[in-house]
Amino acid sequence: DLPLVLIAGPCQMESRAHALEVAGALKAMAAEAGVPLIFKTSFDKANRTSLSGRRGVGLTEALPVFAEIRETLGLPVLTDVHEPAQCAPVAEVVDVLQIPAFLCRQTDLLLAAGATGAAVNVKKGQFLAPWDVAHGVAKVESTGNARIILTERGVSFGYNTLVTDMRALPIMARETGCPVVMDATHAVQQPGGLGGASGGERAFAPVLARAAVAVGVAGVFLETHPDPDRAPSDGATMMALKDMPALIGTLKAFDALAKRHPVML
Amino acid sequence: DLPLVLIAGPCQMESRAHALEVAGALKAMAAEAGVPLIFKTSFDKANRTSLSGRRGVGLTEALPVFAEIRETLGLPVLTDVHEPAQCAPVAEVVDVLQIPAFLCRQTDLLLAAGATGAAVNVKKGQFLAPWDVAHGVAKVESTGNARIILTERGVSFGYNTLVTDMRALPIMARETGCPVVMDATHAVQQPGGLGGASGGERAFAPVLARAAVAVGVAGVFLETHPDPDRAPSDGATMMALKDMPALIGTLKAFDALAKRHPVML
Amino acid sequence: DLPLVLIAGPCQMESRAHALEVAGALKAMAAEAGVPLIFKTSFDKANRTSLSGRRGVGLTEALPVFAEIRETLGLPVLTDVHEPAQCAPVAEVVDVLQIPAFLCRQTDLLLAAGATGAAVNVKKGQFLAPWDVAHGVAKVESTGNARIILTERGVSFGYNTLVTDMRALPIMARETGCPVVMDATHAVQQPGGLGGASGGERAFAPVLARAAVAVGVAGVFLETHPDPDRAPSDGATMMALKDMPALIGTLKAFDALAKRHPVML
Amino acid sequence: DLPLVLIAGPCQMESRAHALEVAGALKAMAAEAGVPLIFKTSFDKANRTSLSGRRGVGLTEALPVFAEIRETLGLPVLTDVHEPAQCAPVAEVVDVLQIPAFLCRQTDLLLAAGATGAAVNVKKGQFLAPWDVAHGVAKVESTGNARIILTERGVSFGYNTLVTDMRALPIMARETGCPVVMDATHAVQQPGGLGGASGGERAFAPVLARAAVAVGVAGVFLETHPDPDRAPSDGATMMALKDMPALIGTLKAFDALAKRHPVML
Repeated sequence: DLPLVLIAGPCQMESRAHALEVAGALKAMAAEAGVPLIFKTSFDKANRTSLSGRRGVGLTEALPVFAEIRETLGLPVLTDVHEPAQCAPVAEVVDVLQIPAFLCRQTDLLLAAGATGAAVNVKKGQFLAPWDVAHGVAKVESTGNARIILTERGVSFGYNTLVTDMRALPIMARETGCPVVMDATHAVQQPGGLGGASGGERAFAPVLARAAVAVGVAGVFLETHPDPDRAPSDGATMMALKDMPALIGTLKAFDALAKRHPVML
Repeated sequence: DLPLVLIAGPCQMESRAHALEVAGALKAMAAEAGVPLIFKTSFDKANRTSLSGRRGVGLTEALPVFAEIRETLGLPVLTDVHEPAQCAPVAEVVDVLQIPAFLCRQTDLLLAAGATGAAVNVKKGQFLAPWDVAHGVAKVESTGNARIILTERGVSFGYNTLVTDMRALPIMARETGCPVVMDATHAVQQPGGLGGASGGERAFAPVLARAAVAVGVAGVFLETHPDPDRAPSDGATMMALKDMPALIGTLKAFDALAKRHPVML
Repeated sequence: DLPLVLIAGPCQMESRAHALEVAGALKAMAAEAGVPLIFKTSFDKANRTSLSGRRGVGLTEALPVFAEIRETLGLPVLTDVHEPAQCAPVAEVVDVLQIPAFLCRQTDLLLAAGATGAAVNVKKGQFLAPWDVAHGVAKVESTGNARIILTERGVSFGYNTLVTDMRALPIMARETGCPVVMDATHAVQQPGGLGGASGGERAFAPVLARAAVAVGVAGVFLETHPDPDRAPSDGATMMALKDMPALIGTLKAFDALAKRHPVML
Repeated sequence: DLPLVLIAGPCQMESRAHALEVAGALKAMAAEAGVPLIFKTSFDKANRTSLSGRRGVGLTEALPVFAEIRETLGLPVLTDVHEPAQCAPVAEVVDVLQIPAFLCRQTDLLLAAGATGAAVNVKKGQFLAPWDVAHGVAKVESTGNARIILTERGVSFGYNTLVTDMRALPIMARETGCPVVMDATHAVQQPGGLGGASGGERAFAPVLARAAVAVGVAGVFLETHPDPDRAPSDGATMMALKDMPALIGTLKAFDALAKRHPVML
């Protein structure tokens, strides 16, 4: 199996300068660790818990920044799309279109994303069983696009709580043949846990990341920020940028061991 | 409190003739029982489990049928919308725009629906705590539209299973002041339970409906079909049309009792 | 179907005087409402969250009080047992032996309870599916004792939370033929929710009770206390004794309606 | 931190010969891998799903076998107790008394186990939040016995399903300071999943075991049998004895890595 890929970046694009700064820092960290990096950031947080939550710079402002990050830093870029009409323009400047978890069954969005020919990362809905992701994969594949990634980000467990079922990782791989990614920072969210915003416990993101890597995943998804506690979204769960190098190193070591001892289902 | 309202109809609009037939039959049943009726049907099932599931006649074909039902039968009509751009044209021919449960946090959709001035029925996501619906209500209200309905349709409970928490009904009412509706047929779904389609147990829809009515809801939502086992979607959960009169009568009796003994939180 | 039975009393026997006072008050309330009453209280809370929680007066002190309540008030009495050896002596002074939910799969306890010939009330474990209660019933029945009651008291739903699935009530009745009781005060517990004790929300007990009665149960179980906020256990969930008459009256009205319209599975 | 300990053996003691055979085989495997071993087997399955399930040889027959395994093989032995009166005699011939998950809140059992002075392994109930195990620990500690182990074995997740929350492992360690063990074979049970018996998916036990070891546990608990599909209990989840050496080797490698990179909460 291929070595672990890191998908990382700040939850939302706060500004051109901010995105470039974080992307540059992550590039250096990933190069130092010898881990392939895909830079992630969102141009629009379309499903904030409450209306007053900041949503990001928006599609128009973000497109040239995505292009700039690709060109100047040479990093592949991932971002999420929310409506079918966004897929084509966004696919011109990013490498991976991401389907948000709440939208993972919206047929038109999956078809539009697939039709761009870009890689498509489908996040498993918080309400979905791992064996049911195959239906979403089939929707994307119907467009002739087989470059599909699946991402686990926790499943509903009572109110305002998610749990990550480690069995889901090999099940999704077995059912679809797609590379499976663990989104360790969203999986520690407490949806609605802060009243008007999602809370969460950042300290557990490395716990879930290393467990998932030990099971054997293609990649780990981690949101990170220079100053998470002041971030406009997902501050409770993002990793501090300064803590990333140690975490990346640990995950790389676990990945090497896991890939030598693959899980057999 | 006002007497119970019934929201009912077939899961999807299969044809003009089919929609008119079911609407006409329901109108007669509701009139006989003395229960106000809102006719519900979907022009597009945008989140079918699998790609091969039939999606309905589509927006263009459905709009004149909605108008015809309103005009010729005099029934208020409810249908669901999936993208912001659908809200305005749909609102011209229906009375209630419904936000699907998976989309209940999509800010742009809530804002577009609210901006039409039509009543908006927000279904509570399968991943949402009842106290968190207030944030979605605030999004709609920000458009100046206070005609908001909230609908319970079950919450994720392990894999491929939903459970209905009866406490959620008075909690949603208390937190928002909105009328609360129990969607008893979707709440008995088993998402993905049939492999490529949602399964469910129709027999429990009356169980959940009468429990909810006893707690005191503003309305009950029931999908119904002349021949559910041959319906193109949600066949496992829709009530047979012929069984509706008895159920409506029972619910009306429970509602009268519940409204005389309101729950106090 | 037979009219609703009420099982009620304080969580634990605090003293002879306290038990007699509450039993007498409940007897008068039940007589006034025309509802059959079984008096419930525990001689030992054997599974308190923490060691410092008060456990009740104990077996030796409680036995004559149970006998006295039966004799002087003429009420049938129910109490819970925790070890096989307790069953025989307790069965001499009470009418119903109750198997606590955590212990509902302990074979020896079920057999010992069954062997007494007393009625046995098996509480469904917080970890049990409704169709799985049949195995516990079979254990009791193997002793030749067919006087078995099943009680729903909520099922685990994430951490520190229970949810009541109203479908469980008719499922348990269908699978076993036993009378099914709704324990509405334990079902609103938040296990461990107060740190060293179970919390809960008393206000929802009537919500669950009336929903269950509307579905059609044989009985409702309600813990009640003259001053719940000062009770040594389950204070957050017990009903105030002064609020019982109104609740009993409401439940009786719903029961009459439900028994005229039985749920058919 | 200390290296990983393995707790392993057949679900139930089927006979003296069977227990000695499996214990001997496991001793050789553990020695070969350089992993400390505690032999586990049950003298009584006191909470079988159904009455017809075989329960084991019983206390009287088992006690000398436990003694013989300790003496002739030099292995520490663990077994579970179900009633307070069993604790003292069992503690004379085993090293670790185990409190079954369903019984983890039974105060008298915890006190009796603690009072023996033997180590006590408290399994976390399927209904318990990880932060709530501290109360059970305090009960045991009140006897002056601080030799306490905590074991995760999955938490209720809908009906007939368990899920393992990897966050629970470091939480239990942080809240109590006790060594934490992952029971990987019970955690893949499907309680009641076979109708009259618990089902499960053996293939996922190594998945959960390696994830837990990567997070950093003191031990792993694995039930194993020479021929699981013919075992009288838990056959669906026990590992085949022949597959143990490879699994032990993999877990040892992950443990070495995890102990070099401890999780910090």
